[in-house]
Amino acid sequence: MAPDQVAQVADEANLRGQIAERVRAIRARDLDAVLVGYAPEVMTFDVISPLVNQGVDAVRKRLSDWFGSFASDIEYNLLHVAITLSGDVAFDHHLTHVRGTSLKGDEIDMWFRETIGYRKRENRWLVTHQHSSVPFDMTTGKAQLDLKP
Amino acid sequence: MAPDQVAQVADEANLRGQIAERVRAIRARDLDAVLVGYAPEVMTFDVISPLVNQGVDAVRKRLSDWFGSFASDIEYNLLHVAITLSGDVAFDHHLTHVRGTSLKGDEIDMWFRETIGYRKRENRWLVTHQHSSVPFDMTTGKAQLDLKP
Repeated sequence: MAPDQVAQVADEANLRGQIAERVRAIRARDLDAVLVGYAPEVMTFDVISPLVNQGVDAVRKRLSDWFGSFASDIEYNLLHVAITLSGDVAFDHHLTHVRGTSLKGDEIDMWFRETIGYRKRENRWLVTHQHSSVPFDMTTGKAQLDLKP
Repeated sequence: MAPDQVAQVADEANLRGQIAERVRAIRARDLDAVLVGYAPEVMTFDVISPLVNQGVDAVRKRLSDWFGSFASDIEYNLLHVAITLSGDVAFDHHLTHVRGTSLKGDEIDMWFRETIGYRKRENRWLVTHQHSSVPFDMTTGKAQLDLKP
């Protein structure tokens, strides 16, 4: 392989490792370990309102609330992680599956879509953009929280 | 500027031009002019179900149905287009505003979020991934079609 191909393979392995580490940190509800992977200026489109969230403090608040909403362990898995990468920019898309029991006793078993944009800085991939969503049903206007891949 | 910086500025201008052309083509309901900007293998997460759509034919079907659902012109505008680009990979995120009148006589005035991933092939940026969504309200379970930035 040419040197730039070797670098690209290493970069992608590096990013894949960081994604796996993020999954581990979410399961462990380790807020700091999740947030170390985010750029300060990250802009997120979340599954719930508002339309747009700006900055890592919004991610911190949201994750903290979300971690605190579970009575059970958080089962958290990614399906079909597809990475597109060149130089110091990458994006990935995947389906995310969350299972657990909420503090109110509701059983959560939900799939959603995620697209994540990254910038490499000082040899680390940082999330600069995250888009998470479920589709909605046009006839009922309801968000579809029960779809399965 | 260094040669690679010049190339990057030219690449970004090129991509910005293609995004503007896509907006023009959508307003004109020019299906072929929109689709020329898509990779055959494009994978989309749409505002409505299903969870995932695979391939440019799914985009063609969806756009054709959508164009046909308007009785009026389609007002279509992008806000805060932010491009992140390196080498032959880029992604952009923005808010999209659609206004018009449906065949049923409903007034449509809707903002949604979009994240689009691109690959440069033969000096053209092709959409390989598109994620469009609205958030939902946790208390009602309804998709929020009336949010404004």
